[in-house]
Amino acid sequence: MSTARLVPRIIPEDHIRQAVGLDKEALAVIRRAFAALAEGKVEMPPVMRLDVPAHNGEMDTKTAYIEGLPYFALKISCGFFDNPARGLPSLGGMMALFESETGQPVAVLLDNGYLTDIRTALAGALAADYLARDDVARIGVIGTGQQARLQIAALRLVRNVSHVRVWGRGRAQCDSYCADMAATYGIDVDVCDDIESLVRDSDLVVTTTPATSPLIKADWLHPGLHITAMGSDAPEKNELDPYALLRADLYVCDHHEQCRTLGELNHGVASGIIPPDDFPLTALGMIAAGEKPGRQNKDQVTICDLTGTGAQDTAIANYACRLMFEDG
Amino acid sequence: MSTARLVPRIIPEDHIRQAVGLDKEALAVIRRAFAALAEGKVEMPPVMRLDVPAHNGEMDTKTAYIEGLPYFALKISCGFFDNPARGLPSLGGMMALFESETGQPVAVLLDNGYLTDIRTALAGALAADYLARDDVARIGVIGTGQQARLQIAALRLVRNVSHVRVWGRGRAQCDSYCADMAATYGIDVDVCDDIESLVRDSDLVVTTTPATSPLIKADWLHPGLHITAMGSDAPEKNELDPYALLRADLYVCDHHEQCRTLGELNHGVASGIIPPDDFPLTALGMIAAGEKPGRQNKDQVTICDLTGTGAQDTAIANYACRLMFEDG
Repeated sequence: MSTARLVPRIIPEDHIRQAVGLDKEALAVIRRAFAALAEGKVEMPPVMRLDVPAHNGEMDTKTAYIEGLPYFALKISCGFFDNPARGLPSLGGMMALFESETGQPVAVLLDNGYLTDIRTALAGALAADYLARDDVARIGVIGTGQQARLQIAALRLVRNVSHVRVWGRGRAQCDSYCADMAATYGIDVDVCDDIESLVRDSDLVVTTTPATSPLIKADWLHPGLHITAMGSDAPEKNELDPYALLRADLYVCDHHEQCRTLGELNHGVASGIIPPDDFPLTALGMIAAGEKPGRQNKDQVTICDLTGTGAQDTAIANYACRLMFEDG
Repeated sequence: MSTARLVPRIIPEDHIRQAVGLDKEALAVIRRAFAALAEGKVEMPPVMRLDVPAHNGEMDTKTAYIEGLPYFALKISCGFFDNPARGLPSLGGMMALFESETGQPVAVLLDNGYLTDIRTALAGALAADYLARDDVARIGVIGTGQQARLQIAALRLVRNVSHVRVWGRGRAQCDSYCADMAATYGIDVDVCDDIESLVRDSDLVVTTTPATSPLIKADWLHPGLHITAMGSDAPEKNELDPYALLRADLYVCDHHEQCRTLGELNHGVASGIIPPDDFPLTALGMIAAGEKPGRQNKDQVTICDLTGTGAQDTAIANYACRLMFEDG
């Protein structure tokens, strides 16, 4: 706790990348963040979204205070979708950290979205840990971007990852994905042209796209399947047929209010398919906190709806600072 | 516009203080920001507020995109009200700026709230410019903090400031205020023990407190009076008797939705005194844009309700960067 006005440390991306990776310690940090959410130990306002329509851009800002952590973070994510034509990445951002006791600025993490990528991948691993079959054999990935890569890397923390198939909108992106997965993780990935057969043949499916209409139909669900839908984090995004949520034996959200407005649940309720006040809700944190069970047998169909929470941001930022400031 | 990933410039408070002050150029910047708001040229989401109840703290985050400006800002304000006991200021914060065309980070302004102070004072000057009598003779200030000082400094940009009286909760704070105003601006300020007589004897009253119940009664309003209420920027704050808003000939807000939830209007509507959908609304920006008149005669009673807008933050941050990066 400070007793004089602080000047925050400015941390460049490469320092953060050196300190924080996809490992079991980081997974434990995200697990505790979700448990804290369920236990009522988190203050977390709704996401703040700024649109910059003239430039096909948006900024999402998330924050949370978690009881007992030394810092709270504010995380800024920018998505400007005309950037690739300029040779710039679409996504970027930074985090600012403040002392929980005094609100004094501690650090600015110029991570360009790296910690968001990490905490998002770890939420997918957590979902699979609680909800996928222990003996997952075949994994299907929908999408070929950064999260399509990191989700597989994170799944290796909780499951044996051997047979992976990928579906993407373009053959070149699929080939690049397969090459990267082989080179980086030594995993052979098969390309699948057809989402239906990918879903029907998988025990675990991860959707990672910015789709705005459903990619997965309810009819394709089959006993034992788990789906983690982590693409939708905005009102217009939608990867799953709303009937799939009804058909599942267990629907799990990362945060109820966010999923109601930004996630797959949003479309189910908006379309009238899912009754807003009479749909059984389990939050991922309830499972992490031991309040509710995850998968209970090999045949359950489970879905996890991830929108990304400020609690994850504050947790991973605290973890990064602990590694960088105390251990370094 | 960038064509390579940017590393933002980190600007310390003293550089910002050297570049930006309370002057007519800065006032023109804030005037244009309000006009842009009224003209529909601003994207501005609701304020994001994080509470840190365990430490009597809060963080408010504001942002806006203004058409035509090179950057949009995100402004973080922390208020931790146990800090003074530790020898730390209660208030602090910073701003982050991003390119409007690409969302790339341009600068982090470590201003500790300085630019917020400036843009808030300038909104008060703008309100007085449009709403106070031209021949203001007696000015009353309620409160003795930073804004009580800066409001007087900013008023000098638009009116002759000669007779100032101040009311504060403690004699020591009042004496300190008077000493500072004499030393800094050469203005003699009288201390007034009684808010009623201060209001009754003034042409222009500025309220700058975090009060949570009304300080000014409707009965005290008198022909020709203008009140700028700039203290309330949160749901619980309240400086004016709601009947005062009804009694005024002209009520002006900085932003309708914000004043409905955070400003004086909030309490008028919540108490049932002001009909929510049948109360004549003038936004400060409508006057700045020439869409509506300000004060029309010497006898009107006018009130301006200021909650502080992200548009002001983006405008002052652009101005600061122009002065620091292009002129320096």
